[in-house]
Amino acid sequence: MKALEEKILKEGQVRPGNVLKVDGFLNHQMDIKFINEIGKEFKRLFADRQINKILTIEASGIGIACITAQYFDVPVVFAKKSQSINLDGSLYTTKVKSYTHNRTYDVIMAKKFLTRDDHVLVIDDFLANGCAVNGLIEIIKEAGATLEGVGIVIEKGFQPGGQKLREQGINLKSLAIVESMTEDSLTFRANE
Amino acid sequence: MKALEEKILKEGQVRPGNVLKVDGFLNHQMDIKFINEIGKEFKRLFADRQINKILTIEASGIGIACITAQYFDVPVVFAKKSQSINLDGSLYTTKVKSYTHNRTYDVIMAKKFLTRDDHVLVIDDFLANGCAVNGLIEIIKEAGATLEGVGIVIEKGFQPGGQKLREQGINLKSLAIVESMTEDSLTFRANE
Repeated sequence: MKALEEKILKEGQVRPGNVLKVDGFLNHQMDIKFINEIGKEFKRLFADRQINKILTIEASGIGIACITAQYFDVPVVFAKKSQSINLDGSLYTTKVKSYTHNRTYDVIMAKKFLTRDDHVLVIDDFLANGCAVNGLIEIIKEAGATLEGVGIVIEKGFQPGGQKLREQGINLKSLAIVESMTEDSLTFRANE
Repeated sequence: MKALEEKILKEGQVRPGNVLKVDGFLNHQMDIKFINEIGKEFKRLFADRQINKILTIEASGIGIACITAQYFDVPVVFAKKSQSINLDGSLYTTKVKSYTHNRTYDVIMAKKFLTRDDHVLVIDDFLANGCAVNGLIEIIKEAGATLEGVGIVIEKGFQPGGQKLREQGINLKSLAIVESMTEDSLTFRANE
């Protein structure tokens, strides 16, 4: 997505530890007009799929998933990090390692919101090692639901998550794939 | 908001510990069409205010804030719970007690996203004791920004958060105010 690559080049900042800060428009302050463009692009990329639910994980995936869901006319379900007393009954649970926060989260989702009848699009802001997406895919498998695709705003192509998903035959579409980045330069992989 | 009261009566479940579960449409699974109606109603209620930014707190406020922001044509900033290595530089920090999770969070926000020039609408899903909203108001004060209003989807009117905010003269609008709730019955305060 050309406009996204341009926005990353203009506003993104590379920090030590493979951190790409895009907190001015994507995951702290959110440029809602631009995120609507992202939602439209996800709809274009997954237009051939029958999707009835968008799945994401808190926190920074939620806003993107909600805006995107408007173009699919479907509800969003977000998996939650750590146990909450507001969630009882029957839960899907998995563990997700966050390299960003250097810890492992318990991730939970109420079973009633994902069943074998669901056709799911997974949406998230970043894909690096793929831990969050793999956690969501585990939940989808456990539910017996159908994974129709994974839509990622920014994939770090130099980390293994994306390749592993593609090797499994998963329908992964990343709007921008960062091929390499240093504090001075950032390059993108050409779109498929 | 009549449609919201009806939806709470139809789909909400009261659980021990003053928990009102509305996870089928508001804060786990999200009914995006309905949340658009919520966004429109917030716009109607705050139409007389010059708002240039919507502020919320992760996680369940984010989706509601993003959908609502479309009706105001403004960006969203969400405050984050606990330190992240993705957030560096100059931060606003405050502490927020969560009765739901029975713990206290450090809440942080990058200073660059809130300044004395900003006119802010705070949006959140629930108001009970008011801890999250008060944390956000502290940050707004520290920034020297102007609080134009607080928009809440569901206020628990039998807990003190709402009254305390109104006593401070804060322009609080709650789309539904639960006056009392037990497992068998739930009543709403009449709209102003």
